[in-house]
Amino acid sequence: MRLNVIFALSTLLTSLSTLAHEGEINNEWRALESDKTVLLTLPHGKVVIELAPQFSPKHVEQFIKLTKAGHYNGNKFYRVIDGFVAQGGPEDGSRKDNLVAKLKIEGDFSTDEHWQFTKIQDNDLFAEQTGFKEGFSLAHNPSEKKAWLTHCPGVIAMARENKADSATSHFYIVNGQAPRYLDRIMTIFGRVVYGMNNVQAITRTSVIEGDTPVAKEDHTPMISMQMMSDVAKDQQIHLEVKNTEHPSFIEMIVKRKKRENAFFYKKPPQVLDICQTPVLSRVVK
Amino acid sequence: MRLNVIFALSTLLTSLSTLAHEGEINNEWRALESDKTVLLTLPHGKVVIELAPQFSPKHVEQFIKLTKAGHYNGNKFYRVIDGFVAQGGPEDGSRKDNLVAKLKIEGDFSTDEHWQFTKIQDNDLFAEQTGFKEGFSLAHNPSEKKAWLTHCPGVIAMARENKADSATSHFYIVNGQAPRYLDRIMTIFGRVVYGMNNVQAITRTSVIEGDTPVAKEDHTPMISMQMMSDVAKDQQIHLEVKNTEHPSFIEMIVKRKKRENAFFYKKPPQVLDICQTPVLSRVVK
Repeated sequence: MRLNVIFALSTLLTSLSTLAHEGEINNEWRALESDKTVLLTLPHGKVVIELAPQFSPKHVEQFIKLTKAGHYNGNKFYRVIDGFVAQGGPEDGSRKDNLVAKLKIEGDFSTDEHWQFTKIQDNDLFAEQTGFKEGFSLAHNPSEKKAWLTHCPGVIAMARENKADSATSHFYIVNGQAPRYLDRIMTIFGRVVYGMNNVQAITRTSVIEGDTPVAKEDHTPMISMQMMSDVAKDQQIHLEVKNTEHPSFIEMIVKRKKRENAFFYKKPPQVLDICQTPVLSRVVK
Repeated sequence: MRLNVIFALSTLLTSLSTLAHEGEINNEWRALESDKTVLLTLPHGKVVIELAPQFSPKHVEQFIKLTKAGHYNGNKFYRVIDGFVAQGGPEDGSRKDNLVAKLKIEGDFSTDEHWQFTKIQDNDLFAEQTGFKEGFSLAHNPSEKKAWLTHCPGVIAMARENKADSATSHFYIVNGQAPRYLDRIMTIFGRVVYGMNNVQAITRTSVIEGDTPVAKEDHTPMISMQMMSDVAKDQQIHLEVKNTEHPSFIEMIVKRKKRENAFFYKKPPQVLDICQTPVLSRVVK
């Protein structure tokens, strides 16, 4: 099975190389568009989030609308659990959230036989296939004709009540080992592409039994949440992200499975965890 | 297959209940021994590590010796990569490490048909079985009769050169999505049981392309590394950890797979990622 995966990747590599020559995916890096990118300013640093309107259009639309209206400015991360999520939104008692429309869940979407992504793995614990598309990590069950964004560290998703279609404006960012059991039942709508260390440094609100509780006033505030396109030019952060459709990315995946570096004096299984496979960013001036 | 796992767990639950009645595993919590527990003091907070001499005796022996000799005091975390590891040890140019004996790798160990652990999952990406033993997460390949500690967030392991038996005193703590491909070729010798948030807040030394590099003087120092038994009584942190052999823990595992809470309006696959299954700690006065 391992060899098959490598073979499939090599084939894909060849076919994508052909595409690249046709000019469809000819850049190793992809520049982020400032109207699909969010700047979250925390007291201790900046975080940049790439939104995913191609996968979760309604959630992105609402998030942009709220961001532009200043909805999140001054909100706090009121539920921050180490190794799980940092969740924020209008504080308890605020009526801010009551005016926000409830969103219909966009947990997964239908695929057909023409649907493609840069597959990296068959049969992980949670899905028939995992891979990347346009920088985002996804899982795909061809048997069901369904695909979905996966809960890897750094993804941003809307929180909700028990009902599927109950998300409004409260969101969480995954800060620990991928809680993949939340896949398909929550709506992921973007991912952190810069400043994940600052997300990790958000004050935990949940402490272990017997430890000193964290005072509410110490919860980390969002100084501001802005669309990058609305940020003053000299304060903008311009980023490029690895193009997950480019042959060089696929080559990296193939190499990563093989672990040919001498450090691997004994080779590990030739498998990849979708959430442990980075899609790199870089800052451009 | 899913049902089989649950069934196996239920059976185990019953047999362990019997054992519990016999007084062998009768506590839901297990108190940590202060001579197998390390207090790492960082500028921004404290971290407690439980050592695993039962799995990696030589590495623990050397780590304790070094800790008692003050080897790590003032050392820095000089290689800190977001989503991967925080690595520290004697600074470049220091001759401190030259006197330290090279360790023979303790990457995995042999099992026989009597070897047991609290199995939580069959066939994850990297192993035939995963589970817990005495609070630590392990993988087991019965076909090979080998078991090993897994690279979950919070584990501490010795760094090494390319050669298997080249570890000395430099160590790393996993701070991101489990790099399981390092399993068996590195020696894990403990895990963080308190203050993982403080590990997450260690200054990254590796930045993305184009971003401002971090000055060496800003690398996070280890104020001190002490055996808990050597810490002044009023400064000690006493911890208990969930007993992973206790029936209540196994019950938790079974429940966690089922996700019966109403929040799961649609049930996820009944599988568990070993590194996403917490073994809780608590502070006792």
